[in-house]
Amino acid sequence: VARFLLRVAYDGTGYVGWQRQRNGVSVQQRLEEAAAPLSGFDTVVVAAGRTDTGVHALGQAAHVDLPAHLDAATIQRALNSRLPPDIRVRRVDRVADHFHARYSAAGKTYRYRWLLSHVGIPLHERDAWRVSPPLDIAAMREAAIRIVGVHEFAGFQSTGTVVASTVREITSVSLGITTPDDDPALGLDEGETRLDLRVTGNGFLRHMVRTIAGTLTEVGRGRCTPEHIDRILEAGDRALAGPTAPAHGLTLMSVAYRDT
Amino acid sequence: VARFLLRVAYDGTGYVGWQRQRNGVSVQQRLEEAAAPLSGFDTVVVAAGRTDTGVHALGQAAHVDLPAHLDAATIQRALNSRLPPDIRVRRVDRVADHFHARYSAAGKTYRYRWLLSHVGIPLHERDAWRVSPPLDIAAMREAAIRIVGVHEFAGFQSTGTVVASTVREITSVSLGITTPDDDPALGLDEGETRLDLRVTGNGFLRHMVRTIAGTLTEVGRGRCTPEHIDRILEAGDRALAGPTAPAHGLTLMSVAYRDT
Repeated sequence: VARFLLRVAYDGTGYVGWQRQRNGVSVQQRLEEAAAPLSGFDTVVVAAGRTDTGVHALGQAAHVDLPAHLDAATIQRALNSRLPPDIRVRRVDRVADHFHARYSAAGKTYRYRWLLSHVGIPLHERDAWRVSPPLDIAAMREAAIRIVGVHEFAGFQSTGTVVASTVREITSVSLGITTPDDDPALGLDEGETRLDLRVTGNGFLRHMVRTIAGTLTEVGRGRCTPEHIDRILEAGDRALAGPTAPAHGLTLMSVAYRDT
Repeated sequence: VARFLLRVAYDGTGYVGWQRQRNGVSVQQRLEEAAAPLSGFDTVVVAAGRTDTGVHALGQAAHVDLPAHLDAATIQRALNSRLPPDIRVRRVDRVADHFHARYSAAGKTYRYRWLLSHVGIPLHERDAWRVSPPLDIAAMREAAIRIVGVHEFAGFQSTGTVVASTVREITSVSLGITTPDDDPALGLDEGETRLDLRVTGNGFLRHMVRTIAGTLTEVGRGRCTPEHIDRILEAGDRALAGPTAPAHGLTLMSVAYRDT
């Protein structure tokens, strides 16, 4: 038996999230079903992190143990031939036996995407949250950079979650703007904007990026100031943060490993 | 009664196309149902052109007659509130009574999009045809520019169609390439490319853009030369052209009118 690292992209629209659930089909279940015929034994696919119902991935990472005589290209072809089109194994690499998709991960990058539009654009709302303009994007950016660094993120996790530590390090944050002129192929009209928040960190609490996105939206609406972010970080009180932004705007972009 | 011009965007995935059909739900039907309560009489929505099953639109145009006391903003709000999220009325303008969405149209722009990828990316395949690389893009571009001008396009229309004239004028063509470095947010890997063919013309025959796209794909594969395009145009023989490319890669981008 050898360990393989899978890079996986999925459209999360039709799934109850990464992890197996009783109430619907998960990405993990589909991958384990696709891997089972390769191994002959019960196959467990372990992800770098769970994604919630409706969250997408361009670069989820997961490891799986399969017979050592199989090579990476064969595994990739076999998995993709059995997976539905909304889940694709983008890459397969053989890794050391002690490698672990979750515990070996050095960092993850998420994107939260808004479509600032009054009426919406159907083709762009599968992975973006439509919000009516205007939003004060300069204020949102000023707020976003305040989460960079080592912080107590308890104020940005969903209530009721119990974890050993709520301290995380965010290593970089950016808020990218696409206007109608920047990319005419998007079909944005005057006054419409696409906003991409990219957050890279060593770990994320449950709903953390979506709560950050929801809070930035409140800042953009002028309902709180950029400095309010500091207060949420200091108080660690979820009640101070904004609402959790919808799942479909969130995409797991990549997972970084020190050496694979 | 006054005439209004609607600019409509839709995700064509779940529709039998623009035009009402017995075998499923059309975009026209949804729009007419949404407009009916505004008029009190049977409402017909007339498009600039039909789009086939699965074809998308960012800027379809259509006219509709509604009570003259209604203003454009009210109509837009009322229609969008009754339409499903995969159809949006992007804009409404009052136009002259003699305006006709189809006969007044001066030109249309379509986009055909390919995703050159061996494995595919779920979030990018809703409006793109996945094709395995490599394609000779320089040869495809050389072929594409040959359709510019006034030509007999009988060789690029679906067989069995009867129209008065198969002469059309293509005023511009471009083939845009997006590489992984051009737009990191797309999540393209090394060796993957997005290709956008944009075609503007005064009119299009049935399946014309998709047949052009299918033929360009054959050129990209080296199965025929760019000069072969001239032969298809001259002979007017559909059998000489490539296969019709899949509907979901096609998007109606915009319809131009001289004065509205």
